[in-house]
Amino acid sequence: MKEIEGGVTAAKGFKAAGVHAGIRPGKTKKDLGLIFCDVKCAAAGLFTTNLVKADPVLLDIETLKDPYAQAIIANSGIANACAPNGMKHAREMQKITADAMGIDADLVLTGSTGVIGMELFTECIADHIGELKKELVSDPSGSDACARAIMTTDTVKKEYALEAMIGGKPVRIGGISKGSGMIHPNMGTMLAYITTDCAIAPSLLKKALKEACAQSFNRISVDGDTSTNDSLIILASGLAENPRIEEAGEDYQVFRALLSTLCVNLARKMAKDGEGAKHLITCSISHARSVSEAEQLAKSVIGSSLTKAAIFGCDANWGRVLCALGYAGVEFDPAKTDIRFASSAGRIEVARSGRGLAFDEELAKKILSEDEVVIEIDLHDGESEVTCWGCDLTYDYVKINGDYRT
Amino acid sequence: MKEIEGGVTAAKGFKAAGVHAGIRPGKTKKDLGLIFCDVKCAAAGLFTTNLVKADPVLLDIETLKDPYAQAIIANSGIANACAPNGMKHAREMQKITADAMGIDADLVLTGSTGVIGMELFTECIADHIGELKKELVSDPSGSDACARAIMTTDTVKKEYALEAMIGGKPVRIGGISKGSGMIHPNMGTMLAYITTDCAIAPSLLKKALKEACAQSFNRISVDGDTSTNDSLIILASGLAENPRIEEAGEDYQVFRALLSTLCVNLARKMAKDGEGAKHLITCSISHARSVSEAEQLAKSVIGSSLTKAAIFGCDANWGRVLCALGYAGVEFDPAKTDIRFASSAGRIEVARSGRGLAFDEELAKKILSEDEVVIEIDLHDGESEVTCWGCDLTYDYVKINGDYRT
Repeated sequence: MKEIEGGVTAAKGFKAAGVHAGIRPGKTKKDLGLIFCDVKCAAAGLFTTNLVKADPVLLDIETLKDPYAQAIIANSGIANACAPNGMKHAREMQKITADAMGIDADLVLTGSTGVIGMELFTECIADHIGELKKELVSDPSGSDACARAIMTTDTVKKEYALEAMIGGKPVRIGGISKGSGMIHPNMGTMLAYITTDCAIAPSLLKKALKEACAQSFNRISVDGDTSTNDSLIILASGLAENPRIEEAGEDYQVFRALLSTLCVNLARKMAKDGEGAKHLITCSISHARSVSEAEQLAKSVIGSSLTKAAIFGCDANWGRVLCALGYAGVEFDPAKTDIRFASSAGRIEVARSGRGLAFDEELAKKILSEDEVVIEIDLHDGESEVTCWGCDLTYDYVKINGDYRT
Repeated sequence: MKEIEGGVTAAKGFKAAGVHAGIRPGKTKKDLGLIFCDVKCAAAGLFTTNLVKADPVLLDIETLKDPYAQAIIANSGIANACAPNGMKHAREMQKITADAMGIDADLVLTGSTGVIGMELFTECIADHIGELKKELVSDPSGSDACARAIMTTDTVKKEYALEAMIGGKPVRIGGISKGSGMIHPNMGTMLAYITTDCAIAPSLLKKALKEACAQSFNRISVDGDTSTNDSLIILASGLAENPRIEEAGEDYQVFRALLSTLCVNLARKMAKDGEGAKHLITCSISHARSVSEAEQLAKSVIGSSLTKAAIFGCDANWGRVLCALGYAGVEFDPAKTDIRFASSAGRIEVARSGRGLAFDEELAKKILSEDEVVIEIDLHDGESEVTCWGCDLTYDYVKINGDYRT
């Protein structure tokens, strides 16, 4: 498995583009992106668990009942969630794209992210679809433009691609994603689009996507708010010409590993770029009784406002970590629990068997001053381990979200 | 039912005091409080649901197996949670108090709040217990001093008292509480001590406390972190000489109403004084299918970081409210849901039947600029209603918690 360039255009058959369409009046950034494949693709999607689902999400769920697609059209600025005429506008967006690209509407998936409740008028999409089509390219610049077009409060573009041999053929997979607020396990305001040229049956594509998502996007949290618009979509063109994956054998395992690695990379990037974040927080639980328990404990730690604020202050306040474990709703023995902080600056044990240790506060501060910090928790109670990712709680998070709409 | 003065010393038989004992080196505020009754009281307590319980909490749970008590000794500065020799020091604190007051150790309840993991050496308690005993008074100044002694990051003292006739006798009830961070439904880092001169059987005292707590302290949230030290304790001296309440009849109902009103008052004060808070947020859900569902929905709204940040910014971002309802884990119909914002400056409907309305942004801003704002949610789906309280998320919350230990 090796890292390659090109994001969502790395795999054979895919082109992408992003333009400024003026979705939200007064904004000047790129706000409309398109991913298009030369051929019809096997497709799979996972969507928000929020009971309140944005209309483009509802439309994609309907569209994917037949698991094939050829294009993804996505806008930023307006989420088209809980908004007047939401489904009407989502369908218009789908049809405008289908007509421009000369394909059936049910091969077009839609995504929106931005302010909830505001009406998404589609005139500007109709006005700019021609330009968007003209800009479509299969080189890295297309992926770059598309990745930027779906950004909202993101401060960095999120993009990654990998290659590996499957069935004797080089297979490529790449993705872009956005999302830095309303991010919580079970997906936040996140859009993630993945393309691959792997030949694979739709049912196995969905299975692999579920497994990869569980280990990546469902293990990050920025603020505990699960949004209305989360969408993770994968398109598989089959153009790598590997023997089509029809069962969960060796080839499937390679593909699944490729997809998981890609998703973890994008998920970490999202956590690190959490709104206002200064630190990526990695929480690793070891020696838990089960993966599900370890996951619940790790999520509680990365979701704790007090722990997040402590990391912002580079304060080795491990009591808040233990406290967050304590209210996770999982049985464990605090009296067996060890806690360590680590980063590229070092590693320090701060609590053993549930009680505080005397430790070097200066070293601890130095460790926590790095961009990426790790909270290691050893439960001494089993063989399972899990890693989750989050970010610190900063002044800027409050600033960004105290005045997002206006 | 009428409001009276005196907080925890309002009821007959109770004295209180607070002094500076130097619990945490370098701090100068009052940090050791004592509540004492002339007679042995019926007693009841409710404690944190966190699996990690501070040693004074564990000790109180043990002590209250025999539901009588006569004194409460509490300190701020150090939580005596997950700390070396925690139980030893909690027992010392209990014994020092019992010896000074000439009562049995098992009539003394203990409470601690402050930094987790730091050892609570009890020499300073032994050194100051004499002074504390000398300062005990039955007038409002005693309650004031005790209320201040248990404050940590609180910016205002929390105290309240009420009087009503029960069985032809005036009965008084009063309380003090602290807590402004680690506050979440099911109790946060909160200490609340209530005294009454009502004559009541311990079993009914416990029953009334549970019911009152469910409607008050368990309906507030500051930051979603449930602490290791939460304690809500009530002592009933019986000195009002009302016919002892032995069953859940009319007298019980009056007492329960009195206790609930007191607890709601203290709980609102805690939410309003949430760390760094600028706004008290009241979330009222109406026409829900059940109280438990309404409560889960309201707690999700007051717990949403994004909603809290929006209120800080006086931004009528109702989409975040609807989003928080959507991930509460309760079935409801977004398409029937109305949302309004209200305060002393007015009332404005922002969403009807799950979709945004055009509304006067200026008026909305004015409404949300008041200290106390109300989010009204009408589900049009039943007859139950519930109110919960929280606060906004501010720069100061991050500041306070980014550097609390040092």
